[in-house]
Amino acid sequence: MRENKDYFINWKAKLHEIIYEADTPEGKWFDIALIGLILISIILVVLESVESFDHQFHQILYVAEWIITILFSIEYIARFLSINKPLKYVFSFYGIVDLLSTIPLYLSFIFPGSQVLIVIRAIRLLRLFRILKMVKFIGEARKLKEALWNSRTKITVFIFTIVVLSVIIGTVMYLIEGKEAGFISIPKGIYWTIITMTTVGYGDIVPLTALGQTIAAIVMVMGYGIIAVPTGIVSAEFYKQNKFYKIHTNTQACPNCNAQNHNDHAKFCYNCGNYLNEA
Amino acid sequence: MRENKDYFINWKAKLHEIIYEADTPEGKWFDIALIGLILISIILVVLESVESFDHQFHQILYVAEWIITILFSIEYIARFLSINKPLKYVFSFYGIVDLLSTIPLYLSFIFPGSQVLIVIRAIRLLRLFRILKMVKFIGEARKLKEALWNSRTKITVFIFTIVVLSVIIGTVMYLIEGKEAGFISIPKGIYWTIITMTTVGYGDIVPLTALGQTIAAIVMVMGYGIIAVPTGIVSAEFYKQNKFYKIHTNTQACPNCNAQNHNDHAKFCYNCGNYLNEA
Amino acid sequence: MRENKDYFINWKAKLHEIIYEADTPEGKWFDIALIGLILISIILVVLESVESFDHQFHQILYVAEWIITILFSIEYIARFLSINKPLKYVFSFYGIVDLLSTIPLYLSFIFPGSQVLIVIRAIRLLRLFRILKMVKFIGEARKLKEALWNSRTKITVFIFTIVVLSVIIGTVMYLIEGKEAGFISIPKGIYWTIITMTTVGYGDIVPLTALGQTIAAIVMVMGYGIIAVPTGIVSAEFYKQNKFYKIHTNTQACPNCNAQNHNDHAKFCYNCGNYLNEA
Amino acid sequence: MRENKDYFINWKAKLHEIIYEADTPEGKWFDIALIGLILISIILVVLESVESFDHQFHQILYVAEWIITILFSIEYIARFLSINKPLKYVFSFYGIVDLLSTIPLYLSFIFPGSQVLIVIRAIRLLRLFRILKMVKFIGEARKLKEALWNSRTKITVFIFTIVVLSVIIGTVMYLIEGKEAGFISIPKGIYWTIITMTTVGYGDIVPLTALGQTIAAIVMVMGYGIIAVPTGIVSAEFYKQNKFYKIHTNTQACPNCNAQNHNDHAKFCYNCGNYLNEA
Repeated sequence: MRENKDYFINWKAKLHEIIYEADTPEGKWFDIALIGLILISIILVVLESVESFDHQFHQILYVAEWIITILFSIEYIARFLSINKPLKYVFSFYGIVDLLSTIPLYLSFIFPGSQVLIVIRAIRLLRLFRILKMVKFIGEARKLKEALWNSRTKITVFIFTIVVLSVIIGTVMYLIEGKEAGFISIPKGIYWTIITMTTVGYGDIVPLTALGQTIAAIVMVMGYGIIAVPTGIVSAEFYKQNKFYKIHTNTQACPNCNAQNHNDHAKFCYNCGNYLNEA
Repeated sequence: MRENKDYFINWKAKLHEIIYEADTPEGKWFDIALIGLILISIILVVLESVESFDHQFHQILYVAEWIITILFSIEYIARFLSINKPLKYVFSFYGIVDLLSTIPLYLSFIFPGSQVLIVIRAIRLLRLFRILKMVKFIGEARKLKEALWNSRTKITVFIFTIVVLSVIIGTVMYLIEGKEAGFISIPKGIYWTIITMTTVGYGDIVPLTALGQTIAAIVMVMGYGIIAVPTGIVSAEFYKQNKFYKIHTNTQACPNCNAQNHNDHAKFCYNCGNYLNEA
Repeated sequence: MRENKDYFINWKAKLHEIIYEADTPEGKWFDIALIGLILISIILVVLESVESFDHQFHQILYVAEWIITILFSIEYIARFLSINKPLKYVFSFYGIVDLLSTIPLYLSFIFPGSQVLIVIRAIRLLRLFRILKMVKFIGEARKLKEALWNSRTKITVFIFTIVVLSVIIGTVMYLIEGKEAGFISIPKGIYWTIITMTTVGYGDIVPLTALGQTIAAIVMVMGYGIIAVPTGIVSAEFYKQNKFYKIHTNTQACPNCNAQNHNDHAKFCYNCGNYLNEA
Repeated sequence: MRENKDYFINWKAKLHEIIYEADTPEGKWFDIALIGLILISIILVVLESVESFDHQFHQILYVAEWIITILFSIEYIARFLSINKPLKYVFSFYGIVDLLSTIPLYLSFIFPGSQVLIVIRAIRLLRLFRILKMVKFIGEARKLKEALWNSRTKITVFIFTIVVLSVIIGTVMYLIEGKEAGFISIPKGIYWTIITMTTVGYGDIVPLTALGQTIAAIVMVMGYGIIAVPTGIVSAEFYKQNKFYKIHTNTQACPNCNAQNHNDHAKFCYNCGNYLNEA
């Protein structure tokens, strides 16, 4: 079917299939290698922050970061070249994440000693979400996302109520407890209310007066009950899904516009009409 | 249809529609402006409580509070004038909240240095609940309220059980642990039981004896299991809603009696029979 | 219908109806008075434990406890006399609770200074559960009990798993962390595991080594997930109830054998065949 | 039916029925005795770790451990002999647990003073899971396992998201808070994030800066909401089970290959075709 296409197009299509999809053996191996590389890169960032480790292996860590940066650079260029609309890719969410994953070492020459680069290196972890392309994971992740998405209005109302309650209770506690107990300002009071209402309970700020402790007890029981609300919302969503949901998923991605979620037997992209690689 | 009504009535109806409803563009802009004003006012209260900030910007904060107070005063008068039964508004829940939102600065001349005024200023936040008139939020908030309302007997039985358990366990722990561990009275024992049963766990009071720690472990596992009860109750309610509920909501409010929750095509108030502004 | 019964039987039946049931106005007033008395009695116990309060009002608290004891004694005798099988009442659960509620002051002459008497006085609170006879509460309490009862095997398996996990993890943590971190014995390790797994997290014992903290993190995520199990069990039970449950409840209690849960129009006790007071 | 089988086979079959099944009175008594022995053995391990107890009763604890070891050795040999394919048993999960339960004391001669032996002794507790053969527990345990197993993909996606979030938030907090607050490395930051997100909240590491506390508050509300997800997943699973599940369980185990979960009236093993002991 594709005999009449020239070699370059074929080569590009092949590369696209390997990099962006996971239906072929090469595509799967590429993904596994990339997952390994990302995990190694994250482990290096984590270990580098442990002082005793960094002192001993600083040189090795530095070389390893260079190797990872070069491999990521190659991958970024390949992604850029193998797609028909490269600019669309560059400005997509994952396009930006890919770029950020590649550049920290280059940036360190421009902004030496910048701490923010460590965070950018940690962001590499986000790339895993895209590579997680095994069919059943996609299906379940989509279900999870849909359950949360369907509940978004309920959850917004819920969080809004929590925030309003926190501000009012935080203000009251600031007035009752005052500075001796650590409630030095209203923001600290709000911080304490959230710690208490979510049942985290660090114990770095605790009420000392009888009235404050009584209100604290009420806030705790309230928080303990409030947790029922998001849980109930999401449970009901999941139950609904169990009943009505049918999923068909594959890892096809359009070589032209990179649209996903194609039907199982789709031959052309539903978004741009481009011919899809055969699954 | 309204040609025969005189200018004043029209003006009053118009004002009512802008202030109390959100179906017209003007109504929406009024609401957005009010939300902004309330948020700014709350942020000022919060910042004022931060000592270093208050020292530097005390003058600005004072002026800003005056501006907000004047705007709220104008709004309160407009609300009062545009409604047919102003006294009903004044003594309604939101009527009182609106008044409380307006007066803290005036009160500070009568009761100088009163700390309670800060709480009254924080109460302004409650006004947001009324303005949140976007149709889908109203629907979801109503569902949330209904699920909680339907579960009220179950939740009462549940909280009652928690309280009885807390008093008995608190008394036992007071006798076992005594003063060294911080259990200086039965109320402190009850406070500790609630902290533990709700899984908050500050750690400001902890059992020190082997027997006390054993009881604590049992209370924890119990509390961990008890949380299943309100969650189960609310989940089942939500599921029921998903199945049977149909909502029709709009932001109509009767210009005469301010009743809400009118049907979508209602022309007359179901409560007082007054003519409704057209949606 | 009861003309042929003699006066004494009638008087006894009347007393039974007042004390044990809540269908008549007198029965309701009796219950409300009793609830008030129990609450006052508990508040006295709690206040007595607050040292500063006890110093000031010791005499008043003592007199009040005498009054309550005398009223409870009269009530106990009335309960004893008005029932056909008094011994069955004496050895029933609430019969024992009633007796324990009455005797602490009498016992204090035999065992002076005994601390355990305070717990016995706190047990009075359990009496509230019986008096809570308003029809809708009975129905909901029964539903709650039934949901928990239906889940008993699942919950047993669940708690068993928690306990086994706690012992094994507690042993491992005792070996890893040792005495410096507060893990001075395996029981302390188990105590820590329960504190962590139930997400209480006092912070009185915390791991200090890297390995210990890694295991702690795993235990936390595990505990966070484990909470889903009892919640899921109970939610499913409640949902089932919503679907299939029909409740008919009243507060009838047989004057002969005190059996409860009679049908709404029952004239004779399903347990002993005795004639029931008319509702 | 079994007249033509020789004595030895009969004896072996009888022993198999007693040890591996719980349908006969002897089988039940064997199980109860074994449960008792395991519990005593665990209590000894726990008590031995309490220093004051060990000092006083060291000799008794040592003798008791010898008795338990000998009884477990006899049981292990009996299990080995009474089964047709002993090697399959030896390398099965419970075969290994049984062996580990038997050998700690023998190992202590080869590796004197080894602490790891205590953990191996604690592992004996795992044996309880096999002995818990009462029919209804098996059914419920199987339901629990099935609900968790059906949710495995959803739970994997969920834990994966938690881990990725923890690493990124942990890195950010390490940069914001730094060493003074205890965030001495990224692993410590991740440890703090898990403590906070699971609402455990030890309070051994807490943010001190305003920015850090703001992020902490967001993490708490997030974690508080996230708990809804596994709960919702498992609730929906349980509800599905309530609707469709029918269980038939018995404690039959094939004397040849030890396969379980036979149908109620099965006469031959579904796995190896061997004749099953009559229930």
